[in-house]
Amino acid sequence: MFDFNIKEECGVFGIFNHLDASQMVYLGLYSLQHRGQESAGIAVSNRDRICNFRRMGLVSDIFKPKVIKKLTGSIAIGHVRYSTSGFSIERNAQPFSVFYDKGPIAVSHNGNISNAFKVRQDLEKEGAIFQTMLDSEIIVHLLAKQQGNDLAQNLINSLNQLQGAYSFLVMTEDKLIAARDPWGFRPLCLGKLGGSYVVSSETCAFDLIGAKYLREVEPGELVVISDEGLKSYDINKAEKSQYCIFEHIYFARPDSVVFGKSVQAVRKKLGRELAKEFPADVDIVIPVPDSGNYAAYGYAEQSGIPFEMGFVRNHYVGRTFIKPNQSDRSFAVKVKLNPVKDIIKGKRIVVVDDSIVRATTSKLRVDALREAGAKEVHLRISAPPITNSCFFGIDTPEKNRLIAANNTVEEIQAFLGVDSLGYISIEGLNLAVGDVDKFCLACFTGEYPLPVEEDKDKLHLENTTQIDFDF
Amino acid sequence: MFDFNIKEECGVFGIFNHLDASQMVYLGLYSLQHRGQESAGIAVSNRDRICNFRRMGLVSDIFKPKVIKKLTGSIAIGHVRYSTSGFSIERNAQPFSVFYDKGPIAVSHNGNISNAFKVRQDLEKEGAIFQTMLDSEIIVHLLAKQQGNDLAQNLINSLNQLQGAYSFLVMTEDKLIAARDPWGFRPLCLGKLGGSYVVSSETCAFDLIGAKYLREVEPGELVVISDEGLKSYDINKAEKSQYCIFEHIYFARPDSVVFGKSVQAVRKKLGRELAKEFPADVDIVIPVPDSGNYAAYGYAEQSGIPFEMGFVRNHYVGRTFIKPNQSDRSFAVKVKLNPVKDIIKGKRIVVVDDSIVRATTSKLRVDALREAGAKEVHLRISAPPITNSCFFGIDTPEKNRLIAANNTVEEIQAFLGVDSLGYISIEGLNLAVGDVDKFCLACFTGEYPLPVEEDKDKLHLENTTQIDFDF
Amino acid sequence: MFDFNIKEECGVFGIFNHLDASQMVYLGLYSLQHRGQESAGIAVSNRDRICNFRRMGLVSDIFKPKVIKKLTGSIAIGHVRYSTSGFSIERNAQPFSVFYDKGPIAVSHNGNISNAFKVRQDLEKEGAIFQTMLDSEIIVHLLAKQQGNDLAQNLINSLNQLQGAYSFLVMTEDKLIAARDPWGFRPLCLGKLGGSYVVSSETCAFDLIGAKYLREVEPGELVVISDEGLKSYDINKAEKSQYCIFEHIYFARPDSVVFGKSVQAVRKKLGRELAKEFPADVDIVIPVPDSGNYAAYGYAEQSGIPFEMGFVRNHYVGRTFIKPNQSDRSFAVKVKLNPVKDIIKGKRIVVVDDSIVRATTSKLRVDALREAGAKEVHLRISAPPITNSCFFGIDTPEKNRLIAANNTVEEIQAFLGVDSLGYISIEGLNLAVGDVDKFCLACFTGEYPLPVEEDKDKLHLENTTQIDFDF
Amino acid sequence: MFDFNIKEECGVFGIFNHLDASQMVYLGLYSLQHRGQESAGIAVSNRDRICNFRRMGLVSDIFKPKVIKKLTGSIAIGHVRYSTSGFSIERNAQPFSVFYDKGPIAVSHNGNISNAFKVRQDLEKEGAIFQTMLDSEIIVHLLAKQQGNDLAQNLINSLNQLQGAYSFLVMTEDKLIAARDPWGFRPLCLGKLGGSYVVSSETCAFDLIGAKYLREVEPGELVVISDEGLKSYDINKAEKSQYCIFEHIYFARPDSVVFGKSVQAVRKKLGRELAKEFPADVDIVIPVPDSGNYAAYGYAEQSGIPFEMGFVRNHYVGRTFIKPNQSDRSFAVKVKLNPVKDIIKGKRIVVVDDSIVRATTSKLRVDALREAGAKEVHLRISAPPITNSCFFGIDTPEKNRLIAANNTVEEIQAFLGVDSLGYISIEGLNLAVGDVDKFCLACFTGEYPLPVEEDKDKLHLENTTQIDFDF
Repeated sequence: MFDFNIKEECGVFGIFNHLDASQMVYLGLYSLQHRGQESAGIAVSNRDRICNFRRMGLVSDIFKPKVIKKLTGSIAIGHVRYSTSGFSIERNAQPFSVFYDKGPIAVSHNGNISNAFKVRQDLEKEGAIFQTMLDSEIIVHLLAKQQGNDLAQNLINSLNQLQGAYSFLVMTEDKLIAARDPWGFRPLCLGKLGGSYVVSSETCAFDLIGAKYLREVEPGELVVISDEGLKSYDINKAEKSQYCIFEHIYFARPDSVVFGKSVQAVRKKLGRELAKEFPADVDIVIPVPDSGNYAAYGYAEQSGIPFEMGFVRNHYVGRTFIKPNQSDRSFAVKVKLNPVKDIIKGKRIVVVDDSIVRATTSKLRVDALREAGAKEVHLRISAPPITNSCFFGIDTPEKNRLIAANNTVEEIQAFLGVDSLGYISIEGLNLAVGDVDKFCLACFTGEYPLPVEEDKDKLHLENTTQIDFDF
Repeated sequence: MFDFNIKEECGVFGIFNHLDASQMVYLGLYSLQHRGQESAGIAVSNRDRICNFRRMGLVSDIFKPKVIKKLTGSIAIGHVRYSTSGFSIERNAQPFSVFYDKGPIAVSHNGNISNAFKVRQDLEKEGAIFQTMLDSEIIVHLLAKQQGNDLAQNLINSLNQLQGAYSFLVMTEDKLIAARDPWGFRPLCLGKLGGSYVVSSETCAFDLIGAKYLREVEPGELVVISDEGLKSYDINKAEKSQYCIFEHIYFARPDSVVFGKSVQAVRKKLGRELAKEFPADVDIVIPVPDSGNYAAYGYAEQSGIPFEMGFVRNHYVGRTFIKPNQSDRSFAVKVKLNPVKDIIKGKRIVVVDDSIVRATTSKLRVDALREAGAKEVHLRISAPPITNSCFFGIDTPEKNRLIAANNTVEEIQAFLGVDSLGYISIEGLNLAVGDVDKFCLACFTGEYPLPVEEDKDKLHLENTTQIDFDF
Repeated sequence: MFDFNIKEECGVFGIFNHLDASQMVYLGLYSLQHRGQESAGIAVSNRDRICNFRRMGLVSDIFKPKVIKKLTGSIAIGHVRYSTSGFSIERNAQPFSVFYDKGPIAVSHNGNISNAFKVRQDLEKEGAIFQTMLDSEIIVHLLAKQQGNDLAQNLINSLNQLQGAYSFLVMTEDKLIAARDPWGFRPLCLGKLGGSYVVSSETCAFDLIGAKYLREVEPGELVVISDEGLKSYDINKAEKSQYCIFEHIYFARPDSVVFGKSVQAVRKKLGRELAKEFPADVDIVIPVPDSGNYAAYGYAEQSGIPFEMGFVRNHYVGRTFIKPNQSDRSFAVKVKLNPVKDIIKGKRIVVVDDSIVRATTSKLRVDALREAGAKEVHLRISAPPITNSCFFGIDTPEKNRLIAANNTVEEIQAFLGVDSLGYISIEGLNLAVGDVDKFCLACFTGEYPLPVEEDKDKLHLENTTQIDFDF
Repeated sequence: MFDFNIKEECGVFGIFNHLDASQMVYLGLYSLQHRGQESAGIAVSNRDRICNFRRMGLVSDIFKPKVIKKLTGSIAIGHVRYSTSGFSIERNAQPFSVFYDKGPIAVSHNGNISNAFKVRQDLEKEGAIFQTMLDSEIIVHLLAKQQGNDLAQNLINSLNQLQGAYSFLVMTEDKLIAARDPWGFRPLCLGKLGGSYVVSSETCAFDLIGAKYLREVEPGELVVISDEGLKSYDINKAEKSQYCIFEHIYFARPDSVVFGKSVQAVRKKLGRELAKEFPADVDIVIPVPDSGNYAAYGYAEQSGIPFEMGFVRNHYVGRTFIKPNQSDRSFAVKVKLNPVKDIIKGKRIVVVDDSIVRATTSKLRVDALREAGAKEVHLRISAPPITNSCFFGIDTPEKNRLIAANNTVEEIQAFLGVDSLGYISIEGLNLAVGDVDKFCLACFTGEYPLPVEEDKDKLHLENTTQIDFDF
């Protein structure tokens, strides 16, 4: 972990003015579950009191009818979270909620504040105490120090002290606020359900509840939703946007519209571009399900090579898995994905996957295909080589663990034991996504749009950290 | 429920002579989880004592490392179960294990004994007491009444009193026995893993542990595996086999080989035959995932119409789901499957599904597609119309709830609101599966291979049933 | 463990014809919780169906309102159990309930059948299968083999094949039957609550629900309670009764009337007799709470020596307790009972306890008193030396672990490090209890009223036992 | 609830320099469990990092071996809590732990800060955010605002802004601090265990771990324990101490030494004084167990009237209890305490109890005695009439619910239906406790030693409170 604050993949959802606000948020989080499976929470305001319920686990396990029934109110925000640190504890589950001078407040945050450590240190020097390791706590501290009575302005003043990626929701007793950083790293969408406003990380959540997609919360925009309707404010504008390319490549659900584009359509085009850049003389094209599905079909269509579902996914994979003592090397991968022997055997195959990080899992999958009798295995990756860590909310490991940071494509091909290996180029990416210069490509290029200095002292601070255990 | 005994969909797995027997069974059950998600159990023999651990829930939730660690021994059998009755209680979880005169014994059963009620009544008249509603308990009672010392012969004598579908495993302190009814309704496969024999409902379980598929346990065969090796006995031979056609159409995992055929290959051929029988002038072919995937791709290949993944499946659907008060009609289906608007909108579509039972879910899916903007919806079903209930182990509802039992295809088409509806024909089935006369097609034809009289008294008896509650 | 069957301390409670039958049983079990804390269960009949709910744990933890709410019916029986074997598993929780030829039946049993092993073996030879290690299962097997239709007579015929201690309740769909062995080892009381009959191990359960105590179910009596009222039958009469003396000395609650006598009054008299037999020149008399309370006060009254509560009991002692690495020897005892230093210091003390089994706990208590500054410690025991194991339902260890079986009183006194040690005599017992010849005194005398041969083969059988694990 | 902050009864325990620090705290909390059964927690420092584990429930349920094993370190503090508000949520469990400018810090607090609302409001105005409703959070905020580097002085400066009752422990990475308010409302004791210092609410915790009692932490004293040993500081001195009289009457364990006196000895003397003030011509004296035990025996000794244990306590009373629909009025009390009929029947009785609050429970107990056949019931109370609420840490209800605040002794006697009623006088209290002017007697006299204004706004604020639910 490079960073003091917890690096998180998250989803947020909020609704204003709905009789079953907490139930709508529950459904929204349900649709956003792919953005985080570690903890989930819903905070609801009945305009007089804010109640908050957070737990480790999946949305459907946490929010039983008796819980939802107690979360009464007409405004609600929710959060799903996957933490990449070892600090998997309930204390760090969101929404984060506190009292401050103006009353109770709750925050759901998706992103990664890059100057969090510095801001936090300054706050502590002024007497602030911290109970979590969440960026949300920093935001609320900044807000609580503002002297005026204009919530929007106070938030803007606070946010202007922060750098990095944030798409977050704030709820007070009678307002719902949505804010997105000036670069727009993470998505945040605005919708309407009858007389209610809804805000979500992705549009797939709107589909489930039947809400209509209005528009994105713009980069650098702060939206205040109250009984007086929706008002838009400028936080700050960046020169150009820095949308996260990985939302399209891997993270978002294929049925969502993200940064104004259909995710599945983008993925299919990625596959088509891959087929143009790296054609192969093979018998079949197979995806690594489910993330590689659309790109693989795009590759098949473009190339005219038959598509086959050569891996079967086990849908009942649990959190813990007992690995047998005496298992072949490819066991770990076969638990989730079993190669279908009578499809694979004797075939020359193109396999399409979304990315290669450490390459260990990729290698096991290739091995499993060989074991199932594949004659040739050609790997096609719908992302360029990942050579740098993300500091803006995607869980990538340290640079020295990224295979492409330390090896050439030829070396990776040799390591994986594939007959050929093709990564899509930045140009291909541009053709598939369109306007690739609006995106942050730092994980491929190392050109970070914001400073991301590692502070040596952070590591020391982390070691003196206070934690709760969970069992 | 027509029947006194619990109608069950189940999976069984066993291993003989393995140092980590219970762990291998755990992995086997993991691969068979699609055959039953309600309860799971493993019984293990250390050649001196049989231990049994059964619980409600998924394999990965039940068998934590500390449990597997306690289940020491070199012979083990396991069971996953989905009960279709309301009697979802731990008492009915399997393996079923008891003491009898010859020592401890455990049984894992997949199938449905059709004369169970009569046999049980006779046993009770002779003084037997029953603690469960399992067919397994009946089998053990019959066995315990045999006087000889030859276990194989005693089992054969017992089984000859039974009619119906069974594929089961018996474990004594030092033997593993596998038996399959004379008609072979349910699959049961034999494999080898190093020096260990393995038996499984499906071959996909062999793939995971790296075992080699040897052959099927034949219809009417009883196999005794002991330190003296494998011995085969005849229970009884039926005139012809009655393989369950639904294993191929829907139930088995696509990466399994069942009744000697690759499941995914059969499904793809079903799609091809469907395309020949019911072509359509449409823009795209989409599956109802995941069960319709292979047939849909077969349809697309045969027809040359582009294949698209028009539904996105939510992988985090929990057991319980809170339905909102104010939801549109198609909500229930969208929780699991969200139509991808930008694929569907304005398109003429063929949707391929595996079967229609009550048609209520199908209707919601069609509605969801319409709502997403489909211009035409043509439904293709890779099974003929289901007009009769199954009495041999597949969970089909009573005849009066089967839409095809009471309506013409035209009426169903009207009910669903589709532009066209095509069910594969028995002839098409024959072309796809091959040798369709070896299969039980009773759910389509009503020609039951065995008598399946409903006994009015059973319903009365059921009402006086004693049950345990589970909370 | 000497014995194949599980040696159990248990409590039973039943009610006939009450609108809230299961709730009344719940309260009854609550009052009988001291008779067993390992598992509890309630079976209830709505005259059409018997439902049974059993779990490991305390009554108040198991029977939440939602459970009781589901257990509807007007007849119910319950059970609390403390098993002395390692077989602490849910499968062995009671009531035991099955179907047999005449319908569903449930049994709650307190006692220990001494020829259980032999009877079970005979049943197995005739084809019976066993799923538990409970005496109750044997009883039901015997019953199921009876051919007639007269339930009372069938039960009598079954019970006449059994030897040993039993006080049990049987429930069919429309009857409640109570039976007590010919010797009357364990108590069983009959009461009335409005129009309902109640049966309980002890009368304290009647007090809680406001029921009126009628009489004991007599030794060798079988009572059938049905819509036709209460009918009494003779099972068999023993020459003389064999009431368990330990019910008075230790096991029963002091506010109960057992075998026709007030338990607390008997205990107080035991203390008085002890004071006569073993006077001491001391400053204070203290009990080992709570079981020694009444005897200690009797001792104090008789001797005129001031009574003090020299130990304070911690009421929050849990099931598991983490013993520290670095603790003084008396730690284990101080967790439950802390000597009150300013009472103990510098005093000559009589301590009254109910019995000495292995003497290890007694020794720690004496040590704790010494450590707290006691000048003299004189131990008085309100039972004679226990020199033999119980085979009729009280959990005493094997003879070789009973300190009094292998040591003289002088040796025990030396081992404990007390200044004097006095056990009440059989004569003293007679004066306190009255008619001591109506009691089984085998644990003191070794004169077992029934044969209790240990069967070597049982141990072998036990090792091949099949068990469920609980975690 | 009069008060914004949660009124709490609590126990605290800490240890410095012990290899098994968390285990020692676990044992200490175990002994202090009577001071709070709602939640418990332990924070431990390994001199580099503070870990904190807090849960709802009993110490023995929360701290399983695997938890204790993870809580490694040589300094630890713990807390048990019984909250009197409806805010029974994990978020409010202690120890409270945060980061501040100087590093991690943890606090365990017993007491009630009477100007908490005002201090908190001031802090919020300056930008502080609050996540709990604990006084501990206020203390840490005050501390975090101190600019110097001297922890002791910073704490003293912080505490001098507070009024009310506090006995608390602070732990930093390398120090254990104990502080007691200038009036000494709550006890706090210092002890030694080998080379380790221990601090505890009561001395009974020292007995269990074998620690030696040194002295009390003095009213107004702050003690810093570090590697440099123990240093004592003055916070502030009050004119005279205000020990809580209820610690002696009811709250503390009888085997503790509190405010320098043996609790059981004080209670016995209270009984003696009661006997002098309110003699009665009766047959027996009985306690309401367990809190009335010592006073009852004092009464019996002084009066020469025989003592009897006329109530039997059920030790297995759970948290929830299902009250039957058709129960007599005294049911609720009989669940915990059953009158022993053959002791009570026909007797004239003195019952000794520690206090009367609302009188409803007392009435039920009297009724239960009448029902059991008592001829006369004379109630003796070892506290004067409670006419005022406590604002310093004891859970007494609002004044209008205190029967003695609104009724004469004669009226209470009539309400209870007793033949006579005697409350000990303040003079009697003085004779029993000694130096009663060192005690806070506000609950009897209404003379509060500190201002306790009820702030109307607090109630409003409470309604806008943000809470977590627990299920």
